Amino acid sequence: MPDPRFFTAAGPFTLERLAGIAGAELATGADPAAEFADVAPLDTAGPGDVSFLDNKKYVGTFEASRAGACIVHPDLASRAPPGMALLVTPKPYLGYALVAQAFYPVPAPKPGISPRAVVDPTAEIGEGTEIGPGAVIGAGVRIGARCRIAPNAVVGDRVEVGDDTTIGACASLSHCLVGSRVTIYPGARIGTDGFGFAMDPAGYVRVPQLGRVIVEDDVEIGTNSTIDRGAGPDTVIGRGSMIDNLVQIGHNVAMGPGCVIVAQSGISGSTQLGHHVVLAAQAGLAGHLKIGAGARIAAKAGVMRDIPPGAEVGGVPSVPMKQWLRQVAVLANLTRGKSTRLKEE
Amino acid sequence: MPDPRFFTAAGPFTLERLAGIAGAELATGADPAAEFADVAPLDTAGPGDVSFLDNKKYVGTFEASRAGACIVHPDLASRAPPGMALLVTPKPYLGYALVAQAFYPVPAPKPGISPRAVVDPTAEIGEGTEIGPGAVIGAGVRIGARCRIAPNAVVGDRVEVGDDTTIGACASLSHCLVGSRVTIYPGARIGTDGFGFAMDPAGYVRVPQLGRVIVEDDVEIGTNSTIDRGAGPDTVIGRGSMIDNLVQIGHNVAMGPGCVIVAQSGISGSTQLGHHVVLAAQAGLAGHLKIGAGARIAAKAGVMRDIPPGAEVGGVPSVPMKQWLRQVAVLANLTRGKSTRLKEE
Amino acid sequence: MPDPRFFTAAGPFTLERLAGIAGAELATGADPAAEFADVAPLDTAGPGDVSFLDNKKYVGTFEASRAGACIVHPDLASRAPPGMALLVTPKPYLGYALVAQAFYPVPAPKPGISPRAVVDPTAEIGEGTEIGPGAVIGAGVRIGARCRIAPNAVVGDRVEVGDDTTIGACASLSHCLVGSRVTIYPGARIGTDGFGFAMDPAGYVRVPQLGRVIVEDDVEIGTNSTIDRGAGPDTVIGRGSMIDNLVQIGHNVAMGPGCVIVAQSGISGSTQLGHHVVLAAQAGLAGHLKIGAGARIAAKAGVMRDIPPGAEVGGVPSVPMKQWLRQVAVLANLTRGKSTRLKEE
Repeated sequence: MPDPRFFTAAGPFTLERLAGIAGAELATGADPAAEFADVAPLDTAGPGDVSFLDNKKYVGTFEASRAGACIVHPDLASRAPPGMALLVTPKPYLGYALVAQAFYPVPAPKPGISPRAVVDPTAEIGEGTEIGPGAVIGAGVRIGARCRIAPNAVVGDRVEVGDDTTIGACASLSHCLVGSRVTIYPGARIGTDGFGFAMDPAGYVRVPQLGRVIVEDDVEIGTNSTIDRGAGPDTVIGRGSMIDNLVQIGHNVAMGPGCVIVAQSGISGSTQLGHHVVLAAQAGLAGHLKIGAGARIAAKAGVMRDIPPGAEVGGVPSVPMKQWLRQVAVLANLTRGKSTRLKEE
Repeated sequence: MPDPRFFTAAGPFTLERLAGIAGAELATGADPAAEFADVAPLDTAGPGDVSFLDNKKYVGTFEASRAGACIVHPDLASRAPPGMALLVTPKPYLGYALVAQAFYPVPAPKPGISPRAVVDPTAEIGEGTEIGPGAVIGAGVRIGARCRIAPNAVVGDRVEVGDDTTIGACASLSHCLVGSRVTIYPGARIGTDGFGFAMDPAGYVRVPQLGRVIVEDDVEIGTNSTIDRGAGPDTVIGRGSMIDNLVQIGHNVAMGPGCVIVAQSGISGSTQLGHHVVLAAQAGLAGHLKIGAGARIAAKAGVMRDIPPGAEVGGVPSVPMKQWLRQVAVLANLTRGKSTRLKEE
Repeated sequence: MPDPRFFTAAGPFTLERLAGIAGAELATGADPAAEFADVAPLDTAGPGDVSFLDNKKYVGTFEASRAGACIVHPDLASRAPPGMALLVTPKPYLGYALVAQAFYPVPAPKPGISPRAVVDPTAEIGEGTEIGPGAVIGAGVRIGARCRIAPNAVVGDRVEVGDDTTIGACASLSHCLVGSRVTIYPGARIGTDGFGFAMDPAGYVRVPQLGRVIVEDDVEIGTNSTIDRGAGPDTVIGRGSMIDNLVQIGHNVAMGPGCVIVAQSGISGSTQLGHHVVLAAQAGLAGHLKIGAGARIAAKAGVMRDIPPGAEVGGVPSVPMKQWLRQVAVLANLTRGKSTRLKEE
């Protein structure tokens, strides 16, 4: 059971209702009226809990689980232990996400401005929005309805924020327009100067960064991530994109909708991503590239050329995924006995 | 046009004045008295705007641009569309930087201490300095003139800051001396303990970190970057060095003037950099190394040995750039047909 | 001498007392009653200072040092300059750590809650704890004795913190239980949502993250590092583990005691580390792995498979250390003359 200090469960829900929420079918033998009070991982779930199996790595745990109900792919349903009620769906992780959201909806903001917040009198704050202690809201800021501005967050002058958006503790925003249903996690920095300067015998000369950051609707920006504003054009984070922690996005980057940027990745200035591009962890893209829609960049890859739509690449500098796997295999061979001969030829 | 919510343009300026500012010559046919009201990127500039061409990748955009004037290298001037006034200089990006600074000077601080800031009575604050709401200034702190301390920044006890320096929102400083005309971006952390501890059967034993961070004049330290103070010697960031976002600088690092450290790079403890060393993005230097003046470290490189002045290196572990490019080429060959034979020999 | 603005020395101490503190033996000829007033690095130490020699790279500096006393390994004692008093121990760095702690104990907190802090009336704050200006302490929070909560830190609702723990400036905590004698450095983020979502034709669907972060006793968490809370299980940081700056720890990661995670490393979700695992800088671990106790991961390595206890690995994807070094050597050979022939065969 999730720690009640931090989480409050809704429910209980009947199996029938849960199947509806999950978009799943009840397997034969499951009682539609049976009630479940919570979600839990396979290894700790009990008879009153709903669990899920998504990663095949955990089939053994599934077989031994005491969960009363489980959301599972049809291909793995037969591995269930006896007596477990099954919610069968080709997308068990999606099903679990929806069921877990039903049990644990995001807490609503507590409307009102803390007397310990600092809100400029020219700022416009929407109905139902919560502004926590220590938050600083600048001149001319516009914040929509039902937003949550967490303690010690800073929203710079004339920034605009849509509805139902959360700005985490100690995050800071400037020079940006943020959509609705956006989550900006604690410590994220949006809209700071891009890294632009020109050489001069007397030192580097700062190039004024005159663009903005546009954060479209339904975006998430992870903890302590940094997104520079554009130098002239804007930096754009496309609708529904998910950016993980400690990610760096350079000036003028334009990202289509639905991109996924995993932790500690970086995108250099002016690079353009189509929709649904995926960067795995610690990957990097050089500047001024075009990355086609649906391209997938492996963890730790370093991309120095344009990538066509749908391509998968890995390595530094990155090459097509199959070629990278061959490189890895060849290197392995060269260093297992073969290598000696090669060197002595 | 830059968004007037966030940027206020000075000007207009005549072409003659702009040429002076840019250090450029007016090409034949340009009217020195013509006035321009703004800067803009090539693809969105109109007849009243000044633009620039620096990266050859954008010559096509230049040829199609509607910009009234453009700062351009002599070699590319002939590619200009008819009617475009040209400001010709061998350093077009520098010229643009200076022109853009004329149109968009950095806004002056608004002198005064916010009643919602917390300034220790023993702190000395220079004339014309702005201290935002939520900023916390410790005991014995000395801050110079015309500085800007942004909201929720924290300046620890006895830290000293020169004139005309900016400390961004939610940044924190301790155990450091910061020069003049320095920009510390939001969320940067200066002066925290280095990562030093000794082994003991009972656990790790913290080694007191007894040095400082010295940030010389004209330095920039990027968003959410971290600079540890020295363990005994100081950590030193040389004059005019530019540090990008999410960079880690370990204890005792000494960096000469004019270094450029691109995003997500890291420098391990006690490594010394000469002047004008460049680390591209996501590069890493091991500890206790000497990196010669003007050395260039490629993106994602991992440096494990000293680097002579002026050298260029890449790869992990890093090797001279030419050798790295050969490694990449050889690996590519080994995995294109040749590889099969090699493995079967 | 450490800058007295930032550090206040205890002492002086006699050589005999220092030997006891360091667990060292006084070498012949050293006067046990001689007093020393400070510690200093070899190159700047004077006759009244105690220094240490740990890294053999600095033997030359040792030979030329003017330090009055030095903590040194028996094997290197003979290299000491004449007149230097020697504190001889097989663990000179540990000896120095203890001596330096005697001269420079961590300053005690200044008990009391700043009137400019915001502490929820339902929070329980232990005796001797200091809460700085701008800190925000949520509902139901429990903080132990002698803690230090620095300015502008945010401790979320119902978080629990043990005794003698420090939470740095601008750090933020939520959904976590933190032990005693823990140091959380400035800007660290503990307990935010893990990066978990499911695919859906209409967009990504957030999976509620229902676990916590458990930070065991004696842990250090570096500046601007980020630790996500578990998705269902908890994220666990084992007792005495040392986490450096800008490190990312994903949801459900479980780390045994005594792990060392160097700067800019990342650990993906659900990966388990035994005790005393070491990740060097900028390393990365994929998700759902098991890393055996005492395993050592080289800088910049990318680990994609389980690692047995005690193993050393390097490279991307990582291989056993010896194999990685052979790969590096083979590649070097292939690109020194041999490569041309190979390509032309």
